Amino acid sequence: MNDKTVADDLAKKHKSISIAEFFEKNRHLLGFDSKVKAMLTCVKEAVDNSLDACEENASELKKKKKNFELPNILVRIDNVQNDIYKIIVEDNGPGISPKIIPQVFAKLLYGSKFHRLKQGRGQQGIGISASILYGQLTTGKPARIISRISPNQPARIVELMIDIKNNDASIIRDEEFAKFANETGTRVEIIIEGTYYKTGDKSVYEYLRRTSIVNPHARITFIEPDGNKIIFKRAVESLPRETKEIKPHPWGLELGILIRMLKETKKNTVLSFLTDEFSKMGSTSAKAILEHSKVNPKRKPSSLTVEEATDVLKFMQKAELQRPPTDCLSPVGRGAIEKSLKLEYNPEFIAATTRAPNVYRGYPFQVESAIAYGGDIPEGNANLMRIANKVPLLYESGACAITAGVSEMDWKRYGVNKPSNSSMPQAPLILLVHICSVWVPFTSESKAAIANYPIIIKEIKLSLQECARQLNVFLRKKMKAKKEALRISTFIKYGGVMAKALSDLTNKDSKEIEKTINKLIEKKFGINADETKKRMIEAEKKKEGGE
Amino acid sequence: MNDKTVADDLAKKHKSISIAEFFEKNRHLLGFDSKVKAMLTCVKEAVDNSLDACEENASELKKKKKNFELPNILVRIDNVQNDIYKIIVEDNGPGISPKIIPQVFAKLLYGSKFHRLKQGRGQQGIGISASILYGQLTTGKPARIISRISPNQPARIVELMIDIKNNDASIIRDEEFAKFANETGTRVEIIIEGTYYKTGDKSVYEYLRRTSIVNPHARITFIEPDGNKIIFKRAVESLPRETKEIKPHPWGLELGILIRMLKETKKNTVLSFLTDEFSKMGSTSAKAILEHSKVNPKRKPSSLTVEEATDVLKFMQKAELQRPPTDCLSPVGRGAIEKSLKLEYNPEFIAATTRAPNVYRGYPFQVESAIAYGGDIPEGNANLMRIANKVPLLYESGACAITAGVSEMDWKRYGVNKPSNSSMPQAPLILLVHICSVWVPFTSESKAAIANYPIIIKEIKLSLQECARQLNVFLRKKMKAKKEALRISTFIKYGGVMAKALSDLTNKDSKEIEKTINKLIEKKFGINADETKKRMIEAEKKKEGGE
Repeated sequence: MNDKTVADDLAKKHKSISIAEFFEKNRHLLGFDSKVKAMLTCVKEAVDNSLDACEENASELKKKKKNFELPNILVRIDNVQNDIYKIIVEDNGPGISPKIIPQVFAKLLYGSKFHRLKQGRGQQGIGISASILYGQLTTGKPARIISRISPNQPARIVELMIDIKNNDASIIRDEEFAKFANETGTRVEIIIEGTYYKTGDKSVYEYLRRTSIVNPHARITFIEPDGNKIIFKRAVESLPRETKEIKPHPWGLELGILIRMLKETKKNTVLSFLTDEFSKMGSTSAKAILEHSKVNPKRKPSSLTVEEATDVLKFMQKAELQRPPTDCLSPVGRGAIEKSLKLEYNPEFIAATTRAPNVYRGYPFQVESAIAYGGDIPEGNANLMRIANKVPLLYESGACAITAGVSEMDWKRYGVNKPSNSSMPQAPLILLVHICSVWVPFTSESKAAIANYPIIIKEIKLSLQECARQLNVFLRKKMKAKKEALRISTFIKYGGVMAKALSDLTNKDSKEIEKTINKLIEKKFGINADETKKRMIEAEKKKEGGE
Repeated sequence: MNDKTVADDLAKKHKSISIAEFFEKNRHLLGFDSKVKAMLTCVKEAVDNSLDACEENASELKKKKKNFELPNILVRIDNVQNDIYKIIVEDNGPGISPKIIPQVFAKLLYGSKFHRLKQGRGQQGIGISASILYGQLTTGKPARIISRISPNQPARIVELMIDIKNNDASIIRDEEFAKFANETGTRVEIIIEGTYYKTGDKSVYEYLRRTSIVNPHARITFIEPDGNKIIFKRAVESLPRETKEIKPHPWGLELGILIRMLKETKKNTVLSFLTDEFSKMGSTSAKAILEHSKVNPKRKPSSLTVEEATDVLKFMQKAELQRPPTDCLSPVGRGAIEKSLKLEYNPEFIAATTRAPNVYRGYPFQVESAIAYGGDIPEGNANLMRIANKVPLLYESGACAITAGVSEMDWKRYGVNKPSNSSMPQAPLILLVHICSVWVPFTSESKAAIANYPIIIKEIKLSLQECARQLNVFLRKKMKAKKEALRISTFIKYGGVMAKALSDLTNKDSKEIEKTINKLIEKKFGINADETKKRMIEAEKKKEGGE
């Protein structure tokens, strides 16, 4: 009895791990596993936030019947020295209230988007602070935030680092700042260790180009480290549909969540709890559910036992309810996607489609696709653009539901070659697939790939098939037109020879016969044979002359 | 100026997200994406903890020159109803101090293993609370922990749930408990929604079987839902080498970490900071580093600027230092692996190897491999056992460095067929690869696959090659022996005929010639031809009789 137990010794070694410490050691989970990827991840997190903020600002101002601006984003990357870069992202959004700047930028797991059910680019409250964490870890430098929330107030400048042990901000500078050009908006500057690629599949340029394609209402200016300036113009001048927050839908609801909601609700009765805190749950359905589960509708929600909650959930999920509402979703829209892709690739053919929303695990989601063919699109493997909530995904293609959808399709049926050892069809194609949802099921915190839910893959295939059917019609017409053109030109070319042969055979005037043939051609193909022949001869001459 | 800005409105929507809320919504990141995987993950997290605790207990008691027991683990899975199971894991470890039971089991990111550099099964402080979170989410039921820390004290029983919003324990029951059989130890009971597979690559049985192979000092009793009892016996009766905690090594050290260490150290001078807080940093090296970076050795560590720290780090990483110490690592050892695999598969051939430690990003790691051939091992694709810190990995094989290592090897060179479209060689083979490290670089929180660091893949290939070379020698000998046996038997079979032909040719007595031939055979192959012939004839007769 004199000495301590081993358990007592071991207990002393236990302590809490801050989420900042956890991600400092596991930064690869957040997309910071290589210098190239880190560069892209930093830009992506800042641009995603800017676009979300600009849209929320415009929506709010529109609601208040005030003037609003469409998103104007500046991305600038400066090479500080060797592989040290300063990333600057500036927007004309609402700015960020000085009270919350420290947490927004220097506290992991803090934000406005995690707890709501509404489509947005950010959803975890990790991204931007993780970028600042990465900068601090690799260069030891603080991040700088400049923000202005009203044209009537000066901007503030804040320099901060993350206090890793406490997952909180350590403020280095916080003062007024006169020189911010935008009336309202935010500017973020992070200094990181990175590698800059000017072009390529995983370059910042490619990310911004794709961002601008699926955000045609945004204007993005990009200044590269060498000073080169690229402007991605707006393709449309209107704001996308505003999304509305929805309540959870009983489908896919988990028992633990229901129990937690029962404990936390402010409603006084189970009946009002059911009707007020869920989507598509009318009073008739709610009453029936409670009757089946033998729970008095007037009971206090927090009084339900686990067994009662289990029963209620069972009948909630059996009830014939309408699908969740879909005004929480904001697809880009076929018209806007087509416009963007035309501007970018000048294709021979384009088809886009936006499917009706569907549901996975109780979350509404929607898939839209586009297929563009020819024009400035290079030959070889099709170029797949994976997009989630209007954010292009450039990494982990192999793990993504979108890649699975493309790969599983029978492209031959649509007149497109796909070698069996390749996951991509081979043709001058752009395939764009956009999934939007109130909660995109990413495979990791780095938000690079979408989990392979069968219902999601099915929607992806259906939407691509819709476009591919039109592509097939186009390709067949194109093939037919090519064949026909060859047939007509042969016909016209040898019209005289044929006429002569017929004239010998029938003893009729060859000129007359040729005229009859030409009339036939004109009637059948709607082409003036004489003129076409002249053009053909001229073209031939030109060709010979040119050689 | 009358109304609020949009930024003010938005600020109100921001709030903290608890890590428990985060993982409740993202449970797939922790290995709870399907019912089959969830079952395995729960068992795995509990068994990992038990083995770690038992080993720490034994080491501590050994150090104090007291009696200690080798690990005795009981795993029992009861089917409560439909797809609801109760998972019970009990050990003879040190027990858990009642003070920390709430945090150990109901607080994510809490533990003793994250902050230390020492090989262990757990490393994140997430696993067991995540399992309890999953149980609570799917069944609404609390977890039960029974723990006894001394034979002189009664056990305690604690029932708890996780308070999701606060990431902390909510205690339902906490009292003395008389009926715990072990003198010290812990028993965990979690009720979850799951799917039970009796056998197969991803079954609990397979996980425990592999666990017992690489933990030959542990005895594991497994009681299946149908009551069937399986005992995995100990293959060795001694404790594995105890691991020692090490200090960080300058290789792979990141600037942000160095700056944080400079701020947090209790040392008074930079010189003592460098020599006392790092591995393999002698006073001569430290002085040289500070001289190069023009930092006075007597400076207070926290007074260094970011620029000075950057310089110090640069010279720390240029300095010619010894590799990190390796007593932080505890491989299974060739002998123990061979013994385990022989017990399990009774193979014709087995080779195992333990490589010298190497370093990735400053962390020591070590690879050991084994190849077993034939015996009870089935034909077809080789069976790959991936192991990390003595824990078998059953999921995400495609993303794992071990699979990459096996797949990249040129198996044909070692006499083993590997079709080009397969990542596995085809032969009756068991390939076992174990990586141990103070920090295993897993690709996700579910700890299912090892990140593809080139240096790790290289070590995996080198260790497999060592075994494969021996396998090749064995396979060639086997082939040669087979050919030779065929040649000798032909020789003996036709000895008489040959003798007769030679007798006709030479006019000598055929019996004499046959004797000479038999003598030749005896001399060359060490075989008595007469006896062998007799045996062959008998065998032939037997065969005919049997047909």
